[in-house]
Amino acid sequence: MAKKYNQLGLIGCGLMGGSLALALKKEGLVKKVVGYSKSPTTTTLARQLGVIDIEASSAIQACAGADLIVLAVPVAASGEMFKTIQQFVQPHVLTMDVGSTKNDVVLAAEKHLGWGAQYFVPAHPITGKERSGVEHADAMLYYGAKVVLTPTPATDLDHVQRAQELWTALGSDVRIMSPQEHDAALAAVSHLPHLLAFAYVNSLLGQPHSDSLLRLAGPGFRDFTRIAASDSALWRDVLLANRTEITGQLRHMVLAIQEFQRALHSEDAEALEQLIQKASQARNDWRKHSA
Amino acid sequence: MAKKYNQLGLIGCGLMGGSLALALKKEGLVKKVVGYSKSPTTTTLARQLGVIDIEASSAIQACAGADLIVLAVPVAASGEMFKTIQQFVQPHVLTMDVGSTKNDVVLAAEKHLGWGAQYFVPAHPITGKERSGVEHADAMLYYGAKVVLTPTPATDLDHVQRAQELWTALGSDVRIMSPQEHDAALAAVSHLPHLLAFAYVNSLLGQPHSDSLLRLAGPGFRDFTRIAASDSALWRDVLLANRTEITGQLRHMVLAIQEFQRALHSEDAEALEQLIQKASQARNDWRKHSA
Repeated sequence: MAKKYNQLGLIGCGLMGGSLALALKKEGLVKKVVGYSKSPTTTTLARQLGVIDIEASSAIQACAGADLIVLAVPVAASGEMFKTIQQFVQPHVLTMDVGSTKNDVVLAAEKHLGWGAQYFVPAHPITGKERSGVEHADAMLYYGAKVVLTPTPATDLDHVQRAQELWTALGSDVRIMSPQEHDAALAAVSHLPHLLAFAYVNSLLGQPHSDSLLRLAGPGFRDFTRIAASDSALWRDVLLANRTEITGQLRHMVLAIQEFQRALHSEDAEALEQLIQKASQARNDWRKHSA
Repeated sequence: MAKKYNQLGLIGCGLMGGSLALALKKEGLVKKVVGYSKSPTTTTLARQLGVIDIEASSAIQACAGADLIVLAVPVAASGEMFKTIQQFVQPHVLTMDVGSTKNDVVLAAEKHLGWGAQYFVPAHPITGKERSGVEHADAMLYYGAKVVLTPTPATDLDHVQRAQELWTALGSDVRIMSPQEHDAALAAVSHLPHLLAFAYVNSLLGQPHSDSLLRLAGPGFRDFTRIAASDSALWRDVLLANRTEITGQLRHMVLAIQEFQRALHSEDAEALEQLIQKASQARNDWRKHSA
């Protein structure tokens, strides 16, 4: 049974934060949501949409009196935000984030929260939509999603358990790993595909007649590039924060591309079919076990 | 008004051919479908599923008496098949293919159909599913799909018009361009993404702990790699047939990746955000105009 909270202090009322507020309210896990966004327009819209109950004019105001604090801001803004709310990160409060990278967030927490860092549980729900903003917030966004918690050896185990219970109550599939493991794995299965999708769309735009090219694009293009429509500030931060792992993954990718180039250059139909068959088989197996 | 046909001779009863037979029957555009597949099991299954009416034991048997012939085989098999059915490609018959590359198919038609090549209308419906086989055939597969016809200067205009009317009657959005234009454009918007999706999955498989990586993959991965599950024989043929254009597209892609590598290496947040913003904006615009 997940603990029920009196007040969620939500910092960042966008897609991720807004969806979490809606989900917690839907499950009756929180009585009141006090929300703050950098842009007052967003905060007001969040209240008008019923995502938050009370508009806070500062992060401090959102956190005052909260027993649950969630940071849902671009990861590069975490440090500054931890500094601002440091006094509220206390033993009786569960503090979490929802950022896509974890090493940098953990380092920022250790730097700015000091002693309080042990009560912060870093969390990454592996979900999203290509359209950001509170107007796309969705109480079911986390249902069935994988959520990775990345405590450090210093993190309070009771808080980790509470975080685990909270996400489980929302229907998420919770896994626990170290921040380092998380960032290495996510570079491979999420950050690199985003970079490739961005780069691929840019490679089309750089060509003459890219408009007429795009008019021929079909459902394969649609799905392959869906993540290219993602939020640029959020992904700038993710790619920068995890650039070492991502650069390593890019090296694997370049080698895999070169295998195709060799097979095409030598017109080696058999090698080409084997390369495709390997990928196709693995993707089919993944669907069977994960979808 | 599209002409109604008495007999469709369907060569290749897979996803694409089977879906076309179902769609034509659904719209009342064909009375009888005689189907042939290389594998007799497929032909029998197609009949059992009601996709075809009569099993043919050879391509010749499927075409005898047909006033509509559709080749729905891997593109590399087109030449051999044209040779086999050459006698049936006549002025009173509309003959089409559904292959993903057009230069090679047109050359094969010119070589093996000779005089009859003018009655062959090369067609490429830009649609599909990641699961091949007649059991996934779908009468609505072509509804709303872009279909490119690639006549040559020698193609009979009356046949082109009939092909256009047929696809339009199925709800497809028909465009006409040269085989060369088609192959260049499709290399960019379809063939390269397939190659990248295959290579990306292979780049994961080549790493230690790829199983545990894949278990963390979320919805972004799912959509980005959907086309990696495509049929290996079909895509081997497509990539080989259009390798020159695809190799050219790969060069554009490598340059676009290098822009990201430079921004990451120099930790240039502004350049990185601009690169992402450009892709995100273009993808959002595409969705608004094309989805």
